[in-house]
Amino acid sequence: MSTPSGHFAFQITHTDPHSRARRGRLLTRAGEVETPTFMPVGTNATVKALTRWDLLELKPGIILANAYHLYLRPGLEVVAGAGGLHRFMGWRRPILTDSGGYQVFSLEALRTVDEDGVTFRSHLDGSEHRFTPESVVDLEQRLGADIIMPLDYPPPATASEGTVRAATEQSDRWAQRCRQAFRPETGQALFGIVQGGVYPHLRRESARRLAAIGFEGYAIGGLSLGEPKEQMWRALEASVEALPAGRARYLMGLGLPSDLIAGIKAGVDMFDCVLPTRMARNGTAFTHQGRINLKNARFAEDFSPLDPECACKVCRQHTRAYLRHLHKAGEILGAILLTYHNLWLYLELMRDARQAIAAGEFSRMEAKWAAA
Amino acid sequence: MSTPSGHFAFQITHTDPHSRARRGRLLTRAGEVETPTFMPVGTNATVKALTRWDLLELKPGIILANAYHLYLRPGLEVVAGAGGLHRFMGWRRPILTDSGGYQVFSLEALRTVDEDGVTFRSHLDGSEHRFTPESVVDLEQRLGADIIMPLDYPPPATASEGTVRAATEQSDRWAQRCRQAFRPETGQALFGIVQGGVYPHLRRESARRLAAIGFEGYAIGGLSLGEPKEQMWRALEASVEALPAGRARYLMGLGLPSDLIAGIKAGVDMFDCVLPTRMARNGTAFTHQGRINLKNARFAEDFSPLDPECACKVCRQHTRAYLRHLHKAGEILGAILLTYHNLWLYLELMRDARQAIAAGEFSRMEAKWAAA
Repeated sequence: MSTPSGHFAFQITHTDPHSRARRGRLLTRAGEVETPTFMPVGTNATVKALTRWDLLELKPGIILANAYHLYLRPGLEVVAGAGGLHRFMGWRRPILTDSGGYQVFSLEALRTVDEDGVTFRSHLDGSEHRFTPESVVDLEQRLGADIIMPLDYPPPATASEGTVRAATEQSDRWAQRCRQAFRPETGQALFGIVQGGVYPHLRRESARRLAAIGFEGYAIGGLSLGEPKEQMWRALEASVEALPAGRARYLMGLGLPSDLIAGIKAGVDMFDCVLPTRMARNGTAFTHQGRINLKNARFAEDFSPLDPECACKVCRQHTRAYLRHLHKAGEILGAILLTYHNLWLYLELMRDARQAIAAGEFSRMEAKWAAA
Repeated sequence: MSTPSGHFAFQITHTDPHSRARRGRLLTRAGEVETPTFMPVGTNATVKALTRWDLLELKPGIILANAYHLYLRPGLEVVAGAGGLHRFMGWRRPILTDSGGYQVFSLEALRTVDEDGVTFRSHLDGSEHRFTPESVVDLEQRLGADIIMPLDYPPPATASEGTVRAATEQSDRWAQRCRQAFRPETGQALFGIVQGGVYPHLRRESARRLAAIGFEGYAIGGLSLGEPKEQMWRALEASVEALPAGRARYLMGLGLPSDLIAGIKAGVDMFDCVLPTRMARNGTAFTHQGRINLKNARFAEDFSPLDPECACKVCRQHTRAYLRHLHKAGEILGAILLTYHNLWLYLELMRDARQAIAAGEFSRMEAKWAAA
């Protein structure tokens, strides 16, 4: 197993005696991140609908951007010309870039994959491009996020075991090439991504291969793509068990508040998901009492806060009736305020989880958020 | 001439010796407003793309909302149920509502006008509604803005003199009925709206009739609807000359920075215009050096601030390249940041104008903003 690069480390400070939950911190070149952590998604170098000042208030430990999207628009030369992603978007705290492997492989009709890499057409203008493991690591290192992800090959959720095995093995070979291409002297960290679909044995094999290569941390990818939930949790459990206990674990793309809690219990340290931001733009708020959809007419004259148990500035200042009006009128402010609140709630849940793990009270925290 | 209602007054503190420009303050029931003032437009009870916290930073003296729009959506019962417009939108400082006469009369195919009022179909769902001068005053008093506007009848810019005369006379009869229906005990102020198209003599007649009725202040409406600029300024001048010198004057719907300066010189105290907010959403920034359109490819790698002479947080933190990227990617943040900057610049221009008038240096201020 490799040594983490000089600027990166993961320290576990507390473990829950009744589950795999743990509290810790990531030490990145851009600062510390307390874990478990939820990373707001900022695909295009902006967490949709929020300013950097909103984000400074919300205090996410780390945010996420997408190398594939930024490569296509505005292009590496623009981000690099600005002095890297942090300066480009005005965010000095830790950033993780996903490679965009998931996005490329979602373009089924627009890409062809071979052992060396993948050729694809831009979803924006149809222009042809090629990613290899080496080119993606170089792209991400120059974009300048603090944690970068390799080019992986996530098989579709519905694929046969043979297809999943082949994609997983190719993904792991690419991970090896990414590791070799990675320049550790930048202080960035490179994670591996466990694949293997819903097959626990393929998950274990992938996790062991990646652990043998050695990465600063490990993501579990290719989950929550439509497979039954029990299969997903079994695949996660198999992945986690086969990964080195001392390295950070990142569950990609999940999920609902209940998924975050289940993930933490399963030993996950990092999460990202578009749900709190995307559903905000669709008029849905997460609350301690469950989701509410502001399109519902019963909120038209509801002058109570979005979530009476929430301390965020939106809940202290605005009513459901006003937020519903903004959404119905198609006003940008509706998206801004719901995004702010939803992320506040997700980040509050993570703060609660960290406190509860440190206090040995994780099950009490779980009960508190059971309706969310 | 009437006495202003108990809670409302206008005080002129300085006059420019070389023009009609003046500095003063409106005393409204929700607080003082320094004039000349620019009112950001918040049609639907939101200044588009800005939170109340953004607005608190920008410190507009007064903002504008639209009674017609709020009547249709969310409806008076919702706004009144919240405790009025201030509480509904979370804005405790002064608010002015336009009646929406302009919006109703813009629906040419959807409305029929008679001496008593106007019947129209909603632009949202085609439902039929009727406004009378009395119903609109009642609507606005219950919406609860601090300054309200009467139902007026703005003739189209291209109308014949006879049509303009008839509409203006009807508008003035409606103004009389609005004044009679108005309940001054709320502490709200009711303004009159001078019509008369591009005809100076009709403008003077309208202004004198309204002055004889007596309003807390006077708007000049029906301008900047496509008529030649010289005709517009002559019509404005005729209106101003015939209005009582001691009352506030509000030029409705204008304009560019150069229009604001010309308007101030012509003796206008209050302005509103959708340009800074609407053009922001279209990717156009106002700067001290003139307008720039971020769609232009030359900004792709321009890492300088939007406006190097601007002290706003957007110009201190973000680059043209980033703002262009956000706009090209259709990101909400692009609209937020450009709206913030454009309003900052408009409000800065007004601050400068007030200082210059007080210092007897209005022409120096005019030169400073000549390129904007």
